[in-house]
Amino acid sequence: MIACNLQTAAYVLGVGAGNSGVGAANGRSQQAAARMAEAATGEAKPSTPPSISWDSHTYVSEAPDSLVRDDDLSGANMDMRRRFEANCRRAQTAICAAVSELDGTEFREDVWTREGGGGGISRVLVGGNVFEKAGCSLSVVYGSMPQEALASATTRGADRAKGYGPGERVPFFACGLSSVMHPRNPMAPTMHFNYRYFETEGGVWWFGGGSDLTPSYLFEEDVKHFHGTYKEVCDKHDPTYYERFKKWADEYFYIKHRGETRGLGGIFFDDQNDKDPETIFAFSKECLDSVIPAYLPLVAKHKDDEFTPTQKEWQQMRRGRYVEFNLVYDRGTVFGLKTGGRIESILMSLPETARWEYNHQVTPGTPEADILDAFKNPREWC
Amino acid sequence: MIACNLQTAAYVLGVGAGNSGVGAANGRSQQAAARMAEAATGEAKPSTPPSISWDSHTYVSEAPDSLVRDDDLSGANMDMRRRFEANCRRAQTAICAAVSELDGTEFREDVWTREGGGGGISRVLVGGNVFEKAGCSLSVVYGSMPQEALASATTRGADRAKGYGPGERVPFFACGLSSVMHPRNPMAPTMHFNYRYFETEGGVWWFGGGSDLTPSYLFEEDVKHFHGTYKEVCDKHDPTYYERFKKWADEYFYIKHRGETRGLGGIFFDDQNDKDPETIFAFSKECLDSVIPAYLPLVAKHKDDEFTPTQKEWQQMRRGRYVEFNLVYDRGTVFGLKTGGRIESILMSLPETARWEYNHQVTPGTPEADILDAFKNPREWC
Repeated sequence: MIACNLQTAAYVLGVGAGNSGVGAANGRSQQAAARMAEAATGEAKPSTPPSISWDSHTYVSEAPDSLVRDDDLSGANMDMRRRFEANCRRAQTAICAAVSELDGTEFREDVWTREGGGGGISRVLVGGNVFEKAGCSLSVVYGSMPQEALASATTRGADRAKGYGPGERVPFFACGLSSVMHPRNPMAPTMHFNYRYFETEGGVWWFGGGSDLTPSYLFEEDVKHFHGTYKEVCDKHDPTYYERFKKWADEYFYIKHRGETRGLGGIFFDDQNDKDPETIFAFSKECLDSVIPAYLPLVAKHKDDEFTPTQKEWQQMRRGRYVEFNLVYDRGTVFGLKTGGRIESILMSLPETARWEYNHQVTPGTPEADILDAFKNPREWC
Repeated sequence: MIACNLQTAAYVLGVGAGNSGVGAANGRSQQAAARMAEAATGEAKPSTPPSISWDSHTYVSEAPDSLVRDDDLSGANMDMRRRFEANCRRAQTAICAAVSELDGTEFREDVWTREGGGGGISRVLVGGNVFEKAGCSLSVVYGSMPQEALASATTRGADRAKGYGPGERVPFFACGLSSVMHPRNPMAPTMHFNYRYFETEGGVWWFGGGSDLTPSYLFEEDVKHFHGTYKEVCDKHDPTYYERFKKWADEYFYIKHRGETRGLGGIFFDDQNDKDPETIFAFSKECLDSVIPAYLPLVAKHKDDEFTPTQKEWQQMRRGRYVEFNLVYDRGTVFGLKTGGRIESILMSLPETARWEYNHQVTPGTPEADILDAFKNPREWC
């Protein structure tokens, strides 16, 4: 997979066709079409596209109706690109409205477009009553990446670069919505989701995504509710999904150097293209629509719980683990940071505050020991 | 270079000769000697040594007189190994005593040895009056790493693996002392140092190290004092040292995705073997002896300064940058985390608390803007 922060994919190692920074808008888009068409036929592939950089963005006061570019390329599923974006934007609005209502605080919005097409809408709530930080970002990305980078960025990378050889850059389109929400109360869990749609040059496409829960304290019924909500969605679409995607989340959100998972998982999937796009889109859509019912009730339930300073410190230490995972292992974050993206969107996922204590040990029999055991030995919740 | 946290080198991708986990102690050490001798002559190099893991350590209540193994190998500079370790231990004791006296709090100590030789002494002060966290760790390491890893772990890696081909593991010895100190008061700077000595199989050796300062607020005279102390040491040993090593620090402690340095630098060097070992050891020794006079007066001066909550928040955000550097860029930390080391020693360098605010901007003309400018445009201090 590319990214749990999809926006980072924007900056992965390349620039989209048409983002060459020369010529007038019309000229650029013609060049782009020509270049992509060439690429599609395997002739005259772009040799060394300029490195993408944040310099090519423009902040705008309002997002255009669509950030998807009007290409008409053979192999591109323009209809899916547009509908996936529209669905992300609809979900972003609905999710932010629900969170905002619970918190009593508005989200701020940053919108940008890029010269070569694409752009993003970041919405962030800071200093809330319930949430210390809640972010939800849409990205539409036209980029290209070395064949090798694609291989390391997706689980079955080689399949994603059909017809491209070592050293060649593969143009791609990506659209996704990603989010992390960190409540203040240590009894209320953090939640992350990301749903994305990819196409590489020549008509190769796939869906990825997932939703996962990171509590500091274990309330079994909460975890069962979250997992149960997603199990129901999974079961409706494919009887094998939940088991596979639950396991995938446990494996992906793993802090290897700690021997623990980041949280209590959920579902995670990538490289989904074994059914027709409509069918997988319907699943992805329902996953996105389940964010609010799966998560917000848990925050509503715990936002005013009493807690001790020690419990707050434990939450802060778990926040530290969140930082460790995101900065050390999250492929999208690491790629994004190293290749020059919109840092504030990439690092929106970090908590407002975190804590590291030397050699902290939990006391056996305590709630902290209980949840740590679940981080070390992933459990079945439904 | 291998590591700013040298202890991480302990865990870099291999296991020392003699740590095979089979046979009695005597047998192991004979096997080890035989294997290293074979390796030295270029014959029958170890094929797939077992992966090192933290399982091979033993906590002990008191460190043995030396953690350096009694090999008698051709090419090994046993005298330098022993004297470098002894000097690190002397400096560790002196530095911790001075910090402890200023703080009014004792360091706690964790000591361990490893089956195949080597071990460590971690000293950590937590919850101090002046320091939120101060750590100082000695490591003596017998390991081996793939020829390729050596190439990426040191600036001139290929030179360090004489006679070894791609895919072969190169046995090494390393000894070093490393430290990070985070004071509570936002006007008092954080300091990091690391001094180390390496030998790889076959008599290749080098020294590395450095001391650097990370303030949240800029007091020019403090930075001049710190840099000036090290410039004086450098000038005494080589007129080219300060200019080269100051620049090296600015380049190494760079947070690429932020376009800023972690702090205000100091000196940093690696791969030093162009003079005789005694001469470089004398320089390294004097650098270590300069930690207390270069740094502690700055903390003593600012430990009781008044500060506002906003200034504390700014310090916390700079702590966040410290975390970003250490987890994303510090080669030793990243290697150590991914290859299984003593996590608590590796991550001792992280601050107790850190903060991330979405899209934080400094106000022009403020002290925060002033120091941020110095992070973005490294200055000359003396």
